[in-house]
Amino acid sequence: MSYNLLKGKRGIIFGALDSNSIAWKTAERVHEEGGKFVLSNAPIAMRMGTIKELAKKTGSEIVAADATSEEDLNALVAQSVKILGGKLDFVLHSIGMSVNVRKGRHYTDQNYDFSTKGWDVSALSFHKVMQSLYKADAMNKWGSIVALTYMAAQRTFPDYNDMADNKAYLESVARSFGYFFGKEKKVRVNTISQSPTPTTAGQGVKGFDGFISYAEKMSPLGNATALECADYTVSLFSDLTKKVTMQNLFHDGGFSNTGVSKEVMDHFVE
Amino acid sequence: MSYNLLKGKRGIIFGALDSNSIAWKTAERVHEEGGKFVLSNAPIAMRMGTIKELAKKTGSEIVAADATSEEDLNALVAQSVKILGGKLDFVLHSIGMSVNVRKGRHYTDQNYDFSTKGWDVSALSFHKVMQSLYKADAMNKWGSIVALTYMAAQRTFPDYNDMADNKAYLESVARSFGYFFGKEKKVRVNTISQSPTPTTAGQGVKGFDGFISYAEKMSPLGNATALECADYTVSLFSDLTKKVTMQNLFHDGGFSNTGVSKEVMDHFVE
Amino acid sequence: MSYNLLKGKRGIIFGALDSNSIAWKTAERVHEEGGKFVLSNAPIAMRMGTIKELAKKTGSEIVAADATSEEDLNALVAQSVKILGGKLDFVLHSIGMSVNVRKGRHYTDQNYDFSTKGWDVSALSFHKVMQSLYKADAMNKWGSIVALTYMAAQRTFPDYNDMADNKAYLESVARSFGYFFGKEKKVRVNTISQSPTPTTAGQGVKGFDGFISYAEKMSPLGNATALECADYTVSLFSDLTKKVTMQNLFHDGGFSNTGVSKEVMDHFVE
Amino acid sequence: MSYNLLKGKRGIIFGALDSNSIAWKTAERVHEEGGKFVLSNAPIAMRMGTIKELAKKTGSEIVAADATSEEDLNALVAQSVKILGGKLDFVLHSIGMSVNVRKGRHYTDQNYDFSTKGWDVSALSFHKVMQSLYKADAMNKWGSIVALTYMAAQRTFPDYNDMADNKAYLESVARSFGYFFGKEKKVRVNTISQSPTPTTAGQGVKGFDGFISYAEKMSPLGNATALECADYTVSLFSDLTKKVTMQNLFHDGGFSNTGVSKEVMDHFVE
Repeated sequence: MSYNLLKGKRGIIFGALDSNSIAWKTAERVHEEGGKFVLSNAPIAMRMGTIKELAKKTGSEIVAADATSEEDLNALVAQSVKILGGKLDFVLHSIGMSVNVRKGRHYTDQNYDFSTKGWDVSALSFHKVMQSLYKADAMNKWGSIVALTYMAAQRTFPDYNDMADNKAYLESVARSFGYFFGKEKKVRVNTISQSPTPTTAGQGVKGFDGFISYAEKMSPLGNATALECADYTVSLFSDLTKKVTMQNLFHDGGFSNTGVSKEVMDHFVE
Repeated sequence: MSYNLLKGKRGIIFGALDSNSIAWKTAERVHEEGGKFVLSNAPIAMRMGTIKELAKKTGSEIVAADATSEEDLNALVAQSVKILGGKLDFVLHSIGMSVNVRKGRHYTDQNYDFSTKGWDVSALSFHKVMQSLYKADAMNKWGSIVALTYMAAQRTFPDYNDMADNKAYLESVARSFGYFFGKEKKVRVNTISQSPTPTTAGQGVKGFDGFISYAEKMSPLGNATALECADYTVSLFSDLTKKVTMQNLFHDGGFSNTGVSKEVMDHFVE
Repeated sequence: MSYNLLKGKRGIIFGALDSNSIAWKTAERVHEEGGKFVLSNAPIAMRMGTIKELAKKTGSEIVAADATSEEDLNALVAQSVKILGGKLDFVLHSIGMSVNVRKGRHYTDQNYDFSTKGWDVSALSFHKVMQSLYKADAMNKWGSIVALTYMAAQRTFPDYNDMADNKAYLESVARSFGYFFGKEKKVRVNTISQSPTPTTAGQGVKGFDGFISYAEKMSPLGNATALECADYTVSLFSDLTKKVTMQNLFHDGGFSNTGVSKEVMDHFVE
Repeated sequence: MSYNLLKGKRGIIFGALDSNSIAWKTAERVHEEGGKFVLSNAPIAMRMGTIKELAKKTGSEIVAADATSEEDLNALVAQSVKILGGKLDFVLHSIGMSVNVRKGRHYTDQNYDFSTKGWDVSALSFHKVMQSLYKADAMNKWGSIVALTYMAAQRTFPDYNDMADNKAYLESVARSFGYFFGKEKKVRVNTISQSPTPTTAGQGVKGFDGFISYAEKMSPLGNATALECADYTVSLFSDLTKKVTMQNLFHDGGFSNTGVSKEVMDHFVE
């Protein structure tokens, strides 16, 4: 489907790794809706991924950037404006990684160098991206910035580890920076709190398959897919949502407001 | 603008009183986006309003219904399906009224007959509308039901009176019925928590002008207008938001997550 | 245990039915802590219950009152002040009942006379109690009013039926009235959102035993008991919590902020 | 006043700087209630403060510790258990500092070394404290851990800068670690979200006096003082609140749930 919702709009999409990625699906959908963008990812992630395919398919250029490096981000922003021929209308931040999770460190046995690295990549990077955009005055009025997050920022999911705390920080950055970006530039900033999604990254989390199945049973409409998240993101980039800002928006088939579902309760009745 | 987002979709829009109404603007925007609908309002409201103009402009039929009457609502649902030629895809509930406010009763001096009437009209009516739709199996799969609400459901605004409590009930109904409508019919149910809006109804609230101005100063993007609310509602009726359900969605230029703004603080600094 | 936390304080405790009741346990604990009170319940509930035992044990008088009747409540407030010898310091509202649940009506098939009755008893009664106290100027400065509620007000538990919506209204009343009671009388108003508790009333809800067991597994500290709720209420009646107001306070062993527990996930892993 | 609420309980109190500090008032109140504790602060803060007075007054020992140093914290925990003669029952974390604020860097112009240092001191330190306690198995069953936070974690206060994001992280750590501390050790973990308080630290924030006055007008019961916060903390350390965990508890005279007060609105009405 295509509605031309993003015709003439320009942006940056971070974090498309492979065709399972939400960012990948978003790039495809934004392209279908008429938006133009630069794809960016960490140099190392780009070597692993197949992002060139996506660039080809969507007529996009790729600009590598370490999202923890102000220098890289400043360069990326400048280049993007140049490549796309004008200031930006949308940005997707889909970046997250916990070294503690990767190295198998339990939440109660963190290595704090790992914690700091994960926080920098997953949470502070969102501030860095916005500070680069803000200082360069690179966003058009009524532009839209979205970051992906997860409900572990509100409630504990034991295997989500320190990513929960990183996401809480990320969501706070959306509010804090959203205030200034709104006041000064008329730009909105929101986070989408997405269902657990079987991306290549998500699959790194312990017990992820069981959890996907649990979430499916808890969500009255079922889990939201990566493609559905891309659709939702398109709506947030479009001119239909101009006054939605500083919000954390649950996109999860209703999980977040379901105390328990009949399907889950059935496991506890004798 | 028009994106054809609602092409082929059918629905009911409650509460269009005059051209200041959010429901009126929504009807216009839904029409532009290709949706067809029945307009409904209370018989008495219809006499005061100019809804016929809107019906003419959008090629819609009007079916009067008292939203507190199961009989009226059952008839409305049956007629709407018949008029529109099929099951429904969207419903907007924009109905609210406090007798205590109208009669000038303070929150601490309520007349409980007034309270009950206001609750029935403003809150229980949303359950009644959905129960009629549900029992008649009148909603298509992936349909979308939206009700308008206000942040007084979460935080106290002294002049909002018992409407705060009514809106809290309404938002709870969205979650509770959203669970069953999701599970059984794949229909989503959400509320939009809108900026104070200078509708004809809103203007009845004491000190409303001062409050609009305060909210404008508190909201980083400024207050959301009725037209912007219509746009947002269109996005929630569209296929881009299929997995958003049981949510209360703030559409308020950032007011809800602003603790205080510089503009407001300036009034308190000597 | 006793700390003399409520020495010299006077109040009203609504809803003590039998020794399983939270209100019963609260009466016992308040008595131990030196507080004096009137016990009140609906005339019909008093016939079923064994409240006279409690009155004897705690040296309290019983004043029957229908909590939906302004007349009864006004009389109760006047009598309580007289019996206790002065204005009041604390009030516990532990009243709730859904006719739809009792009559086996599903949430999507409500009888609206039942809904209205249940709302009046469970939710509006809290407003009525406070309005009686407020108009009679019957609360001392720094008094404390508490009502019991349940998390279904925030998230859907399918069997909780229309009590979810009633509790949402009740919690809103706590905020709305709390604003005025705070400003005008320096009285605080809060709700405690308690774990599912095997009271005689709670046991009427379908599948309650399975649910208790599920909640136990979801709560890192286990479910909160009726006695623990009484302790918590004592802390909210005491002078240690003077500036806590308009809050909904979860007393649930952590359930509310647990996304999923390991014990629950174990049911979904093959 | 004294109720003997903490008789026989042992703990650590972080962050008592001078007699304006919430931690200082808490130490005094805990002492009055029969609790014994070790006072801890950063070596540099101890040179500036007058903590020895407090130690003398409360019969406590002082153990200096950099709350960002695992080594210091491990030593502190071991020493505290030794000094106090047994495992601990309570811990207060009252530590926070933003280098960006101190150096006058605007939120949109952060120095990320400053951000990282501030996050480590203000937010990650809470995890480090708990990890030290957890690994040393130094908490008694039904112990209570409290950290102080501020509502900027939920809503933006423009001058609060990156402390907002740090507090969001801190509150998330309370939930995440609270889950494991609850499950494994029956220890509860909560944060108190306190009114703006004229402590020596708080006064460093720009426009603080105007903000205190604004908050006073927004809060139906007025701002909560440092002493009232100490009282509330005592209630959370006591056995009356055993099943309250993973919560962020607003202690703010009702500010958090007040949309606007009459006193504030009066500034916006002509």
